[in-house]
Amino acid sequence: MSAPILPSAITDLSDTLSRLPGIGPKLAARLAVYLAVKGVRTRDELIAGLGDVAESIQVCSQCANLSESPLCAICLDEGRDRSSVLVVETVLDLYQIEKAAIYKGLYLVLGGLISPVNGVGVADLNIDLLWDMLAKYECKEVIIGFNNNVEGDATAMYISGQVGERFPGIKTSRLARGLGAGISLEYIDPSSLQGAFQNRSSVSN
Amino acid sequence: MSAPILPSAITDLSDTLSRLPGIGPKLAARLAVYLAVKGVRTRDELIAGLGDVAESIQVCSQCANLSESPLCAICLDEGRDRSSVLVVETVLDLYQIEKAAIYKGLYLVLGGLISPVNGVGVADLNIDLLWDMLAKYECKEVIIGFNNNVEGDATAMYISGQVGERFPGIKTSRLARGLGAGISLEYIDPSSLQGAFQNRSSVSN
Repeated sequence: MSAPILPSAITDLSDTLSRLPGIGPKLAARLAVYLAVKGVRTRDELIAGLGDVAESIQVCSQCANLSESPLCAICLDEGRDRSSVLVVETVLDLYQIEKAAIYKGLYLVLGGLISPVNGVGVADLNIDLLWDMLAKYECKEVIIGFNNNVEGDATAMYISGQVGERFPGIKTSRLARGLGAGISLEYIDPSSLQGAFQNRSSVSN
Repeated sequence: MSAPILPSAITDLSDTLSRLPGIGPKLAARLAVYLAVKGVRTRDELIAGLGDVAESIQVCSQCANLSESPLCAICLDEGRDRSSVLVVETVLDLYQIEKAAIYKGLYLVLGGLISPVNGVGVADLNIDLLWDMLAKYECKEVIIGFNNNVEGDATAMYISGQVGERFPGIKTSRLARGLGAGISLEYIDPSSLQGAFQNRSSVSN
């Protein structure tokens, strides 16, 4: 065949889409074709929405949360308890916790976890922001809210060690492992089960 | 909480992304956050790519394939055999067949299948383009390349009936059902197996 199968604008868009997390080449091609004709309105909204994000979103200079101003809404909120900082891996983890509306302190978005296998070291993370925050506020507790895996464990260990050295008065805790709501005991992993035993509570009668 | 959890530009982008086929609300939120900071380069390429598609892509006026000109590369190609038209549901089906480089005729992208359940009738499809094409070229065969399901069967039946009425000299065929390469007999569905029996070929020795 002399002519290429797909118009180059479609191939280019498909290539770009396939570089996004969670989008494989098949879905990328499907989206590119959809956005070319059927999804014209969604395409225009996407262009506008991406432009808005480019213009208005910045990273909070204190906690690395997404923000529309130099400091994010949480850091600016005078009602938040400045005596605790909850360290999370990603902004999405922060939003998940905020949705539950059970935590009233500050956050630190680390932006990743220490992972030698993936070439992620301490220097790649927002750890210095944590030291700045602990030095600035009269903080009493650093709560670690990482996923329950090897990288989460290693990073929690590192942070807890560093907090102990740099700020001897501040204690470090980690969110408890245990039984998730709606998760059947039949399918529970050993690590969560161990946590559920360690953190078991007495039942009053 | 007084302030909303997510900056509105992020929520808006996430909402738009979740309207795309194959992207659920969780992935949409993840993508919106990714495109805000980490994926800045991809974001800029997306904006440019979507703009290029908006500017350069149109629908071929003859076969409804995507195109950079009023007629698509396939319809313009003098080397294609104009005696057969392969009717497919989507542009992606066309590309899949073109990649195999085994068909040299023309196409008609129907843009859907007849589906009363989903409210898709003949009027919603590019069926008139098929009659125009059959009237224009000295066509001998209409090949139907639909998926092997209820809508595919119903639409194939409709087209074959209409071709018989409107163009008595043109025959209609449908791509054979059979064993897919790499598909284990153990998992084959009855319809494909029936096709494989009906279309069985003699083995020379």
